[in-house]
Amino acid sequence: MKAVIIGSGNVATHLGKALTKAQVQVSQVWSPNYENAAALAKQIGADAISNLTAIALDADICVISVKDDAIAKISDQLTGFKGLVVHTSGAVSLDVFANKFDNYGVFYPLQTFSKHKAVDFKTIPICIEANNVTTLAKLESLAVKLSDHVQEVASEKRKILHLAAVFACNFPNHLYALAEKILTDNGLDFAILRPLILETAVKVQQDLPLAVQTGPAIRNDEITMAKHEALLSNYQQCLEIYRTLSESIKKTIA
Amino acid sequence: MKAVIIGSGNVATHLGKALTKAQVQVSQVWSPNYENAAALAKQIGADAISNLTAIALDADICVISVKDDAIAKISDQLTGFKGLVVHTSGAVSLDVFANKFDNYGVFYPLQTFSKHKAVDFKTIPICIEANNVTTLAKLESLAVKLSDHVQEVASEKRKILHLAAVFACNFPNHLYALAEKILTDNGLDFAILRPLILETAVKVQQDLPLAVQTGPAIRNDEITMAKHEALLSNYQQCLEIYRTLSESIKKTIA
Repeated sequence: MKAVIIGSGNVATHLGKALTKAQVQVSQVWSPNYENAAALAKQIGADAISNLTAIALDADICVISVKDDAIAKISDQLTGFKGLVVHTSGAVSLDVFANKFDNYGVFYPLQTFSKHKAVDFKTIPICIEANNVTTLAKLESLAVKLSDHVQEVASEKRKILHLAAVFACNFPNHLYALAEKILTDNGLDFAILRPLILETAVKVQQDLPLAVQTGPAIRNDEITMAKHEALLSNYQQCLEIYRTLSESIKKTIA
Repeated sequence: MKAVIIGSGNVATHLGKALTKAQVQVSQVWSPNYENAAALAKQIGADAISNLTAIALDADICVISVKDDAIAKISDQLTGFKGLVVHTSGAVSLDVFANKFDNYGVFYPLQTFSKHKAVDFKTIPICIEANNVTTLAKLESLAVKLSDHVQEVASEKRKILHLAAVFACNFPNHLYALAEKILTDNGLDFAILRPLILETAVKVQQDLPLAVQTGPAIRNDEITMAKHEALLSNYQQCLEIYRTLSESIKKTIA
């Protein structure tokens, strides 16, 4: 099997490495930025191409892993590609490829990727979708080489998943950042929170989050919440978030 | 060394087990609820006592691990106790014990505890504070038996830490709960988010959260955010949280 990767961002990089590791040959990498393409290509033994017209039309699969709003435009330039075309986005419909290719799909790894942080792809859920059963079967056989958690998810449900991922990943990370700011402003080191952050995530690997909620809001501990709000008097943004989330937690009290 | 534990909640339970494991004898457990005291006492080979007047006045340390607003009242009933008295709260001042005992302090393990989830105490930061240097030294020698991360933190800074912990633990867990609700309402399983939640916490074990922020808000991807808000039209609470947190993330864009 021969693959071509379009893109050189976090997802493209980790996916490229995972494909190579799974013995899928990535022959070419193209990116809007040639240097980034070259850097990724070098890591996975592929050729960087500077022009999309140089794409190997006989490759089995073309993986488009670029910004959401660039997928349509780039796929317009891939006419003539005979293999399977997929994108890796959580938020873009399968239909973005309609009337452009015979066989197309979605290959969405549900994980947060940073370029320099290694990940174990085997544990990453991969959500696949395709425009016909043959293509779906091909995508599945590829996905199971990379991950132990492959499932078919239709576009509408994938969008829900992508939204839920914002609540489960992007927002918690921002709250970590606010905690860090509060600490460093007060001469304390963020490192002291790391075990707590990890344990909070570890706990919900078995239990459901509702069952393990702790803190003043779930106890409706008004005294502590008032003290916290007083400490946040110089942090307007944090104060608003504190109130909004505490109110939301209180509504879950049975 | 002989310890007495007042309380039978999550912190009391895990601390009692950790003390026992570190060869510190816990001789007695008292709790407002006798059955809970008995349950904890049984697990750690202590006696449950039904009345605070039965406390062993010769114990070396009395650990008060009860609700914040009960600490003052309970400590009033411990007059005559000759050993060291500590509480385990993040939000209550050392001064709660002033003029009640000769030697007192705070022993605050910065972690989220659930009764039935085992924790490795060695990794848990323990913040200590005392009313004199001798007591501080005693607390430190006890704390290092339990944890590799012991530090002196004064009451005012401890309150900041406790506040930051709400942002780093309680609020992220609530966001996991909202993600779960969004998924289950749409026939999707929370399990698919677990690797993402874990990786989000693992990432900040090395990096600072600001450096690894991902998602539509940090990219200022208005199209995706508008789609997400549309999906949340029936979730007023989630929508408000989505907007508040997205705005806050956007303000961090360099």
